[in-house]
Amino acid sequence: MTKHRVRFLPFNRQITYPDGKSLIRAALEAGVHVNAACGGEGQCGKCRVMIEEGRVEGGCSEMLSEDELARGYRLACRSRVRSDLVVRIPVESEIDAEALTRCGPPGRTARVQQINLEDLKNQGLFIPPVEKRYIELPEPTARDNVADTSRLISALRKQHGEHRLVVRLAVIRKLPGILRESGFKVTATLARPVFERGRTHIINIEPGDTTDRNFAIAVDIGTTTVFGQLIDLITGNVLAERGDINAQVGYGEDIISRIIVAEKPGGLEKLQEAVMETINKIIRKIVKKSGVKRDEISTVTLAGNTTLTQILLKIDPTHIRRSPYVPASTIYPPVRAVDLGIELPRHTTALVYSNISSFVGGDVVAGVMGSGFYLSSELTMYMDIGTNAEIVIGNRDWLVCAACSAGPAFEGGGIQFGMLASKGAIEEFLIDPHTLEPMILTIGNVRPRGICGSGLINIVANLFETGIIDNLGKFRHDLKSDRIRQVDGVYEYVLAWKEVTQIDRDIVITETDIEHLIRAKGAIYSGCRTLLDEVGLSIDKLDRIIISGGFGSHLDIEKAMCIGLLPEIDPDKITYIGNGSLMGARICCLTNRIRKDVVDVMRKTTNFELSMTASYMDRYVAACFLPHTDIDRFPKLKERLAARSAVEGK
Amino acid sequence: MTKHRVRFLPFNRQITYPDGKSLIRAALEAGVHVNAACGGEGQCGKCRVMIEEGRVEGGCSEMLSEDELARGYRLACRSRVRSDLVVRIPVESEIDAEALTRCGPPGRTARVQQINLEDLKNQGLFIPPVEKRYIELPEPTARDNVADTSRLISALRKQHGEHRLVVRLAVIRKLPGILRESGFKVTATLARPVFERGRTHIINIEPGDTTDRNFAIAVDIGTTTVFGQLIDLITGNVLAERGDINAQVGYGEDIISRIIVAEKPGGLEKLQEAVMETINKIIRKIVKKSGVKRDEISTVTLAGNTTLTQILLKIDPTHIRRSPYVPASTIYPPVRAVDLGIELPRHTTALVYSNISSFVGGDVVAGVMGSGFYLSSELTMYMDIGTNAEIVIGNRDWLVCAACSAGPAFEGGGIQFGMLASKGAIEEFLIDPHTLEPMILTIGNVRPRGICGSGLINIVANLFETGIIDNLGKFRHDLKSDRIRQVDGVYEYVLAWKEVTQIDRDIVITETDIEHLIRAKGAIYSGCRTLLDEVGLSIDKLDRIIISGGFGSHLDIEKAMCIGLLPEIDPDKITYIGNGSLMGARICCLTNRIRKDVVDVMRKTTNFELSMTASYMDRYVAACFLPHTDIDRFPKLKERLAARSAVEGK
Repeated sequence: MTKHRVRFLPFNRQITYPDGKSLIRAALEAGVHVNAACGGEGQCGKCRVMIEEGRVEGGCSEMLSEDELARGYRLACRSRVRSDLVVRIPVESEIDAEALTRCGPPGRTARVQQINLEDLKNQGLFIPPVEKRYIELPEPTARDNVADTSRLISALRKQHGEHRLVVRLAVIRKLPGILRESGFKVTATLARPVFERGRTHIINIEPGDTTDRNFAIAVDIGTTTVFGQLIDLITGNVLAERGDINAQVGYGEDIISRIIVAEKPGGLEKLQEAVMETINKIIRKIVKKSGVKRDEISTVTLAGNTTLTQILLKIDPTHIRRSPYVPASTIYPPVRAVDLGIELPRHTTALVYSNISSFVGGDVVAGVMGSGFYLSSELTMYMDIGTNAEIVIGNRDWLVCAACSAGPAFEGGGIQFGMLASKGAIEEFLIDPHTLEPMILTIGNVRPRGICGSGLINIVANLFETGIIDNLGKFRHDLKSDRIRQVDGVYEYVLAWKEVTQIDRDIVITETDIEHLIRAKGAIYSGCRTLLDEVGLSIDKLDRIIISGGFGSHLDIEKAMCIGLLPEIDPDKITYIGNGSLMGARICCLTNRIRKDVVDVMRKTTNFELSMTASYMDRYVAACFLPHTDIDRFPKLKERLAARSAVEGK
Repeated sequence: MTKHRVRFLPFNRQITYPDGKSLIRAALEAGVHVNAACGGEGQCGKCRVMIEEGRVEGGCSEMLSEDELARGYRLACRSRVRSDLVVRIPVESEIDAEALTRCGPPGRTARVQQINLEDLKNQGLFIPPVEKRYIELPEPTARDNVADTSRLISALRKQHGEHRLVVRLAVIRKLPGILRESGFKVTATLARPVFERGRTHIINIEPGDTTDRNFAIAVDIGTTTVFGQLIDLITGNVLAERGDINAQVGYGEDIISRIIVAEKPGGLEKLQEAVMETINKIIRKIVKKSGVKRDEISTVTLAGNTTLTQILLKIDPTHIRRSPYVPASTIYPPVRAVDLGIELPRHTTALVYSNISSFVGGDVVAGVMGSGFYLSSELTMYMDIGTNAEIVIGNRDWLVCAACSAGPAFEGGGIQFGMLASKGAIEEFLIDPHTLEPMILTIGNVRPRGICGSGLINIVANLFETGIIDNLGKFRHDLKSDRIRQVDGVYEYVLAWKEVTQIDRDIVITETDIEHLIRAKGAIYSGCRTLLDEVGLSIDKLDRIIISGGFGSHLDIEKAMCIGLLPEIDPDKITYIGNGSLMGARICCLTNRIRKDVVDVMRKTTNFELSMTASYMDRYVAACFLPHTDIDRFPKLKERLAARSAVEGK
């Protein structure tokens, strides 16, 4: 990949940046603020820069006069880096320039971990729970007229060493016809047992050799969103992926309101049908996109929190929300996908992830399995930040877990313009501390629609580090900008004027939003601390932190530390895995080993009820500041804040 | 039981007979012919006898004049033995009396074997495949809030030593509600695995202690009839039993015609629904009669021949009737009864008997298991004589089997007035060789409707032994009786004039009927001989013959030997078990051991295709005589025939 040197004047900051990538993102990464209000769509015309040396592609706009274009002005958001560049950012004054160098640049992005298929293959673990085997059977004769099933079982034993086979009734029904139409050359689909010495079920039979066509669907059922992946079980690759809002949202945004609906007559059925509608919609789309036939899909794996799992399986979730918070079950037998209402063939096996407790569900278990840390000697903290947050700490020998009532702020819940990490979500944010003008970039570089989780972290961290809000999350009242205003007595900052949004309303962040964020991060932070305390560990003993969540494509670790979501530790120790639940659902259809390991993980895991731990509430109250009442826990941030004060004091 | 001595004059024959039983049956057992044409209903008035000493109950009739009554005349069929008796049979002449002493009296009735529950209990084998366990669970607390299923499994382990448990989804769904409504005192229904180290499935959960209410239904699915028993799994007793015509008969009387129907579009479904209709009708009746609630029925066991089993399970039976006669499967996984259309609760487990080959089916396997000879060192021949006939020879070490195309003669098929062994079927028959008047007794002592299997054997044996038909089954043409006549060129004997029947037609036995019987018994006899030959054994090596079939309440061994259905061996070696298939279905719901043993029996059994055995056809042709071309194989019969000739020659 060709890279170019890009130098920004008047700050003299330089960055090496890939050919063809957006100039405004280069500025962002260099920590250079460029006014940008439209998310990167080229609508606001504010991101004008002058190309002094080198060549960009695009960036012209009718918002620039011919004279300006001739002088080298371009819109940074529309310009692509094509050579080494010297770019001048127009600033009104020296003070401007100085201030802009002080604004917090983006911090380290967390290392992203994905499933390592090669490792899986090398370790001989790429053995899906549902596999295909091709066999050629000897044709029956008068001297050898054993039953068709006996012939099949015997061939599977002789040709593939398969033992302990059970033939499903549906297969017995199809077998005589398929054997004879195929000249006794068939492919059998085998569903593996989870237990040693269990039985392998023959769940389907097809004429000819179809062993190269075996697919699975992995589904993450979230409170707010459902994601599905279509996976090729021969290569292990994801052929298509799709997310959608869980149609259950129409019955309530959080788990408790869903349970209340489920308790009403017919409520459970309605909720189950709603999530099925979403799952089937996603399946339709990924099946279409990948060109796979439904008949070729042998497995569907599903992971969700305990309530959503029980609703999925039509199990009344009533007691989950009632002390002492007892789930109906933590493990579930394999079922037929059609029996749940999933529009897949009758033979398709549905494997549903186990839960640990009422509030640590299958999504967390899936993340633990998908990230693989349960196999490592490294002491790891796993944080699943979704509509709520769950924490798992441990290694291959032991595991503890707890759920934090963090609420859905990081998925946009309770935030006025909060939204999921999708197109139009403000993800990048820098503020000019002098003019208070924002630099906002959205996912997809389109006009903004709202704020996603990582955007929220970036915005609040920037507002805090530049001193626009204090450690309580309150706006300074002496700042002069029409972007900071009071509406119904609540201070807010206008991120984007309605003219440049997709929603024809000003997109703002309010003190209430910030309060919600602080509460959410406070719950998570104090949860981590309490759980560490319960097992007698301090944060510096952790070898690794794995973060799972729908923040977007990446997570800015320094910003997350700045607001006190994460403790301040070596950024190298932090890994971001995106949707851990989906990752776990995927790995479960790639290797049957996972199902065995889940049993083991469940046995090793101790669940803590934070509400039962006296110190938790104290810790929570202490954590409801930016970053914390005790700034000494965040020494690097303390240093930065001190440096800023010194500059401002000049 | 009080018994009385009954002496018949003028023959001076004496018998000891139970108090209260019918006088005409006493005559029959004594080998004394009494004219009787109405089956024992008291309609024909022919069975008049004179009570010379002692006292009977009943027997008066308007068919007797006052004078006759005063002189001691009674109708034998309506008279009950109440004291020692001297009874005179009115005969026209000395010749009459002499002839009557020559007619074949009933022979030895085969020993009847039933399931020995005490043995089962003493051997610790009375462990049904589906059992109930009562448990009291500790109530959950904040410190002990494991999932409901975990709590259940743990209690079953601690309180009953149950391991390797799997909870069905349907149970998970019911569990939270039932635990709480019952104060955590529940009864779990456990379905045992067939394999060692398999999993026990928890298939139902009920509030409180219901362990004393656990029932099963055993079903024998025959080509012509279906029988069901409702069984108490606590005591092992049969609470109700019922049989009915298999509604599939409407689609064809034999297996081949059913398969032809099944091959047509929708045919399989129609046949399956037909048999389900019959099964459900029987279940309704036995449930009602026993007063058991359907919810208390945890198991249904089913046994049928291979074609009927495949139809029951909606498996296309096409290839059963096509060379090389391959069944789809011989073993079937347990299924839910409702999935087959059986009107029983969703949790009820259906266990379907394994088949051996296309023509040796689950009815035979059930009989082998039910009669228990597969556990014995005695060399046994098991004969299942139903709509067709199957033979199994062997002991605990080895088994061979074969099917004979005998046809349904013994169930009344192909016999003009043939019928099943039910009320109104002529079962007992004696003929006065002088007057050629019959003595017929029916099941239930009602007016005759037809002839059942044991009746057919008795009639033909009597006609043959008294010389009315020859060894080809043809009537002597020189006999003078209006009961012997020619209709459309075919000779027949009138068993009952239409006035005394229930069907307003003369009930006859024709030469064609006899021909069918001879073919049927020839096929069975030659099948036995061929199979014995294949394993290098002679008949005298057999320790035991077990006969299964719907002949009625008993089987006359000597008559069966007389027609050459059975080889002539020591009658003590012969056991009659009635409906072996039903017996096997019943024992399968009483002891799970049976299911394991079936796997072993199937492994040990070698199936012979008689059609592939060259000598079979020769043997068959030789056996199509009464009793056989080679009379020396039946030395006792030969002796009796010689004695008769000597008398006639006088």
